Amino acid sequence: MKKGGIFITFEGLEGSGKSSQIGLLASQLKELNYNIKATREPGGTRIGELIRQITHNKDNVDLTSVTESYLMAASRAQHVREIIRPALEQGMVVLCDRFLDSSLAYQGYGRGLGEDEITVINKLAIDDVFPDLTIFLDVAPELGFQRRDGSGKIDRLDLQQSDFYHRVYEGYKKLADKNRGRFFIVDSSLPMKEVHLKIWQKVKDLLE
Amino acid sequence: MKKGGIFITFEGLEGSGKSSQIGLLASQLKELNYNIKATREPGGTRIGELIRQITHNKDNVDLTSVTESYLMAASRAQHVREIIRPALEQGMVVLCDRFLDSSLAYQGYGRGLGEDEITVINKLAIDDVFPDLTIFLDVAPELGFQRRDGSGKIDRLDLQQSDFYHRVYEGYKKLADKNRGRFFIVDSSLPMKEVHLKIWQKVKDLLE
Repeated sequence: MKKGGIFITFEGLEGSGKSSQIGLLASQLKELNYNIKATREPGGTRIGELIRQITHNKDNVDLTSVTESYLMAASRAQHVREIIRPALEQGMVVLCDRFLDSSLAYQGYGRGLGEDEITVINKLAIDDVFPDLTIFLDVAPELGFQRRDGSGKIDRLDLQQSDFYHRVYEGYKKLADKNRGRFFIVDSSLPMKEVHLKIWQKVKDLLE
Repeated sequence: MKKGGIFITFEGLEGSGKSSQIGLLASQLKELNYNIKATREPGGTRIGELIRQITHNKDNVDLTSVTESYLMAASRAQHVREIIRPALEQGMVVLCDRFLDSSLAYQGYGRGLGEDEITVINKLAIDDVFPDLTIFLDVAPELGFQRRDGSGKIDRLDLQQSDFYHRVYEGYKKLADKNRGRFFIVDSSLPMKEVHLKIWQKVKDLLE
């Protein structure tokens, strides 16, 4: 499978600034006349958004962790075939908000299903479409909470979820450590523009 | 995982009479005071029915075969954990309209993704919950079409789909051949009551 473009994924906890950084990088690349495709998971396709309605509906408390993992893989399978691979084959720069590493961190480490199980499940879904670069926006879970909430308050549910987000965070660190060639870790507690400059430096090297 | 009950799955093409036969068997078992649970895939749970709305909506022509396979596995993962395993642990007789063999026959053989790929994808979903008995209601694709349609007419789309259903049918035959201890093949072109008697004979042996 020939791959002409460049595939960059953004990973991190909620509140880590992924969508802002994707926006800044996309603008910069467009200014330099790169053809870019910004997309997200779960979602990114019509079918993927239907799946997202199941995974992200807070009423679906009966959804098991294993079911959730398969739904993420289903959305990813559609995304790879309908959007990501065709865009790469056209030589585009694809910027994706979450990809395989999110499943490994959230379901594999956070939900405790294990990195190996999630890797096996996703093999056919990604079909050898691996990111060229994965930007990990590193904020500790507590800071992510505050940013997401805006109020700075942490409630009882947040505290219950706190263990989960710590496992996800540690999972990301392990993934970054195992995949040093692909992962680029940025301290996302820095001001937004500074974070962008670090990312841009790295991406520029990749494009040259 | 201790398993007290008995897990019976029904397989076959559309129009093969699965739901009628499940109804007849369920009535017979209830008369004899067995605790039974009749269910179906995809579906069988609230989450599964949400997934079924994606897989069975004819407008979703953009759904890829691989995505479809993951959605079936997602529904199955939920079904096993929420319904099938708990019912078996309570010693119930579970009658299920389609299970893993449907994915192997339809996506593995019909869509050409391969039996091995579909087996790998489904491993975590079924988590060692295998049927004790699989009843294959054997009707040739043409007869299934006529029964399903009611009119006996076969249109252009049916003819296009005909190749697909033949591959599914041949897939089922291969699965039955590979799993002779578990599969029970019934000629479902026979009158409904006669088919039921054959199934009942087999199930009675299993219950004794």
